[in-house]
Amino acid sequence: MTSTPSRAPVPTEGTRARLLDAALDLFTHCGFAGTSLQMIADQLSVTKAAVYHHFKTRDEILAAVVRPALDDVREVIEAASAQRTATARAERMLTGWVDLALKHRALITLLQTDPAVKPHLKDEQNAAILLEQPRELLASHLTGPTRQVNGQVALLGIVMAASTPELRELDDETLRELLLDVGRKILGLRRPRTA
Amino acid sequence: MTSTPSRAPVPTEGTRARLLDAALDLFTHCGFAGTSLQMIADQLSVTKAAVYHHFKTRDEILAAVVRPALDDVREVIEAASAQRTATARAERMLTGWVDLALKHRALITLLQTDPAVKPHLKDEQNAAILLEQPRELLASHLTGPTRQVNGQVALLGIVMAASTPELRELDDETLRELLLDVGRKILGLRRPRTA
Repeated sequence: MTSTPSRAPVPTEGTRARLLDAALDLFTHCGFAGTSLQMIADQLSVTKAAVYHHFKTRDEILAAVVRPALDDVREVIEAASAQRTATARAERMLTGWVDLALKHRALITLLQTDPAVKPHLKDEQNAAILLEQPRELLASHLTGPTRQVNGQVALLGIVMAASTPELRELDDETLRELLLDVGRKILGLRRPRTA
Repeated sequence: MTSTPSRAPVPTEGTRARLLDAALDLFTHCGFAGTSLQMIADQLSVTKAAVYHHFKTRDEILAAVVRPALDDVREVIEAASAQRTATARAERMLTGWVDLALKHRALITLLQTDPAVKPHLKDEQNAAILLEQPRELLASHLTGPTRQVNGQVALLGIVMAASTPELRELDDETLRELLLDVGRKILGLRRPRTA
């Protein structure tokens, strides 16, 4: 056998994913404004040109970091909206919201801590997707001001609690079940019969 | 009668309170880092020297803006801790926490939106007062991981929801009652018999 090069080039898609992970990590620890393309390159031990091959600006990287989360929220909204009753929509939105809160903890922490990131997300369309539509789906079976208040407490309480360091010691499955339970209490939903 | 001057000097305490209100307002809209003593003076139509008479730096102003809220939290923690049972402590902490969330909405919004403010608050002592002790009091009657999770969801859900623009249209008394109800649901507390 002929010898193969010991450092084969990393496949492009793998590099892109690693690059986004490294960027989110650096944004969280150094701030969006405090992170340069060079720092991202250094973190991955690649050249700045390699980063530049995928993304031309820091803004493009942030957009790519955020996009999967927005896509996930849209998917959950769609699945919840397709349910036939208001309580089924609420239950589906709740399970989706808890899953999103756990899956995207790092990004949620970044959004809470770095104001430089908010303008990139907080256009009106994204606010509707991230907050208004989920809240409406969570609470449309409720009436009067409870609909707004309990919807808002469920929406924000779950997403904020899931990303706090205090709950990191719980394993994901336990935390998921407990967040679902507390969400159902807030929204007056019964635990579905199917396990 | 001799004529009195038409523009009597504003009493010092009144000026100080107005100054803190104006500062909180400017911090919220222009950012802590983007607010100068001159801007605060302009907002109040006083000279920069008049501001300087009360506070030498922007940091001093922020400390003075934050202090009443920290004092209020300490007072609620003390009142709750003095109750004889865990559920009485939780109920007292809950009513106090809802009242604090409503009273200090503007400051809470600032804390959420301006990272420049956080380092001024997030020393360990303040974190204990603002988060750990209240959460422990809210949920010490609960057992297992529910104690952490439901305590955290109640703590953050209430304080975040109370300061969102979406709930501004509700009058304070309605919002207060609804937040208490949802808090009791999360924490498994019965509505106390005394109205």
